[in-house]
Amino acid sequence: MKNIFFTPGPAELYFTVESHIKKALNEQVPSISHRSAQFQTIFQEAEENLRNLLALPDNYYVFFTGSATEIWERIIQNLVAERSYHFVNGAFSNRFYKIAQELGRSPLAQTAPEGECALVDTGKIPTDVELIAFTQNETSTGAAHPLEDIYQVRNSHPDAIIAVDAVSTLPYVDLDYTQIDTAYFSVQKGFGLPAGLGVWLVNDRCLAKAEQLVQQQSIGSYHSLPSLFAKAQKHQTPETPNVLGIYLLAKVAGDMLTKGMEIIRNETKFKAGMMYQMLSEHPNFTPFVRNEAHRSKTVIVAETQSPSAEIIGTLEQNRLLIGDGYGTFKGKHVRIANFPTHSKEHIILLVDKMSAIL
Amino acid sequence: MKNIFFTPGPAELYFTVESHIKKALNEQVPSISHRSAQFQTIFQEAEENLRNLLALPDNYYVFFTGSATEIWERIIQNLVAERSYHFVNGAFSNRFYKIAQELGRSPLAQTAPEGECALVDTGKIPTDVELIAFTQNETSTGAAHPLEDIYQVRNSHPDAIIAVDAVSTLPYVDLDYTQIDTAYFSVQKGFGLPAGLGVWLVNDRCLAKAEQLVQQQSIGSYHSLPSLFAKAQKHQTPETPNVLGIYLLAKVAGDMLTKGMEIIRNETKFKAGMMYQMLSEHPNFTPFVRNEAHRSKTVIVAETQSPSAEIIGTLEQNRLLIGDGYGTFKGKHVRIANFPTHSKEHIILLVDKMSAIL
Repeated sequence: MKNIFFTPGPAELYFTVESHIKKALNEQVPSISHRSAQFQTIFQEAEENLRNLLALPDNYYVFFTGSATEIWERIIQNLVAERSYHFVNGAFSNRFYKIAQELGRSPLAQTAPEGECALVDTGKIPTDVELIAFTQNETSTGAAHPLEDIYQVRNSHPDAIIAVDAVSTLPYVDLDYTQIDTAYFSVQKGFGLPAGLGVWLVNDRCLAKAEQLVQQQSIGSYHSLPSLFAKAQKHQTPETPNVLGIYLLAKVAGDMLTKGMEIIRNETKFKAGMMYQMLSEHPNFTPFVRNEAHRSKTVIVAETQSPSAEIIGTLEQNRLLIGDGYGTFKGKHVRIANFPTHSKEHIILLVDKMSAIL
Repeated sequence: MKNIFFTPGPAELYFTVESHIKKALNEQVPSISHRSAQFQTIFQEAEENLRNLLALPDNYYVFFTGSATEIWERIIQNLVAERSYHFVNGAFSNRFYKIAQELGRSPLAQTAPEGECALVDTGKIPTDVELIAFTQNETSTGAAHPLEDIYQVRNSHPDAIIAVDAVSTLPYVDLDYTQIDTAYFSVQKGFGLPAGLGVWLVNDRCLAKAEQLVQQQSIGSYHSLPSLFAKAQKHQTPETPNVLGIYLLAKVAGDMLTKGMEIIRNETKFKAGMMYQMLSEHPNFTPFVRNEAHRSKTVIVAETQSPSAEIIGTLEQNRLLIGDGYGTFKGKHVRIANFPTHSKEHIILLVDKMSAIL
């Protein structure tokens, strides 16, 4: 009997992945050249399915990297000469801020207490920052910025590039891509794919900024925006990429299109509602994010009265795997992924088993 | 009926890969956390099997990246402040040289005519270059540096870091790792794995150099050598990596250990011998690398009298896929991979079919 992974890192595979892998092996996808027409078709299918699934405007490009962590680095290299501004609401948004420092920039950060989102006060953001970074869904704490926060900053700082970390929320989050400039995710979360692929959505403003920056500084090499763009125009990548990963993304995005994003979004809200209700009523749990408007629908975090290891262990006996708290919250929190692959039946099962814990 | 891929990019999968993927799916490897003990065991197994397979000294570390292309960039970022020296014997060695330029360094290159290796004249290499780069096996032309070339430079320039691109030759090439400082490869060639993983072998001199360089410049962020080292000490990676790829590498390296590197090396030489003999005797083909001492055993390149597309097409009807010429040699060359997964029977079949072409 298999486990059901509700962990918010690599998570349960989307339920169609195994059959897609079998088909890929039969078609010898891992052996094809990344310069072949067959690969170009796969790239194009992945791009078009993502475009349709996310309602991505025409002035956006879809690029592939090794991970979302890589995208943090590429964003700073390509889009920031001096100063980025980071809304920090947990460990991952903080890591992005630190990467800007490690790359020799002078970033600014507004840091919220753990379990909260920074209150957006547009007057506090200097007018000359080049890029403003939101971690829309902070995987470490379950604190999610309302989209209105992001759009408000867009209005107040129209010259800045707005970057949205949507790692653990896409395809659920319904971003208005005309009000931001770049968003990114890794495939092992909401898309339910094996890890090893980052997806970087970038508009033409970003490309223009990189083309301007390269006149005065290094913007990296094979994964600079101009290099990614030049190859993507031919439905290719600069390096030999994770071909199987791109193939699986194309197929799973297609499966999600068939199901329909409206259904997926409604189910996500419904499942999150059940989970938060149980957590709120249960004496052992308290949703970590107090402000309901800031509670993530896709990564649900709760404080636990008893040590989290006990709860995790009890559920594991039922083949239900949930995540421990992140960093200093290890032992004190549980983290539960609510991704498209988790059916209502899965979540009901988990809610029932968690309800039964004293 | 399936194709047999003799292409030197992504190539034929190692014959055990499909069953390892099935086992990985049964064990839910793609869903496990990259911070779990289960992942640490996989990392350790991959590292130890590689260590044994390649006879890697204790002062070497094994790090994972997204691709070998990424490793070019990381080498320059971490190991070169000003000036690297590149032996250029084809498109890939030239790309590495260009990456050093794109990253703002001032590299030097000694460029050989296509199909040759640069003659190593140690007197021509400035004494103050920080790093000397060899592409031991140039995938674009099939020109392979004799290992003595590399060791000679080590003797003449003991202070320089010696970097060896072994992308399309490992595990075959029997490097003396004490005479170099770093080597690297991507898994979709000699190891016969799905693309999307680079492997970077690095000794303690490299780590010390990076730790010194970071005092004066940015050496990158999550994939800097100190960052990779810190995580590898815990059998982890800085980012969520290609977990399935690392798992498959562990298993295939284990399979190769069971078979034995001596047998794999002898078979490789034997198969290469058959192939070069046919090419030398056949009126339609001429081995592109004239100097026999410089002919690659793992990527065999031949000039063709008739357009290469005709030859490739004829072989394709027999389900035998070989590579076209690279870059400007498209249409004029064929390139044939001779990797561990290609059995003697495979190569005999290909030799027979190529012999029959007029």
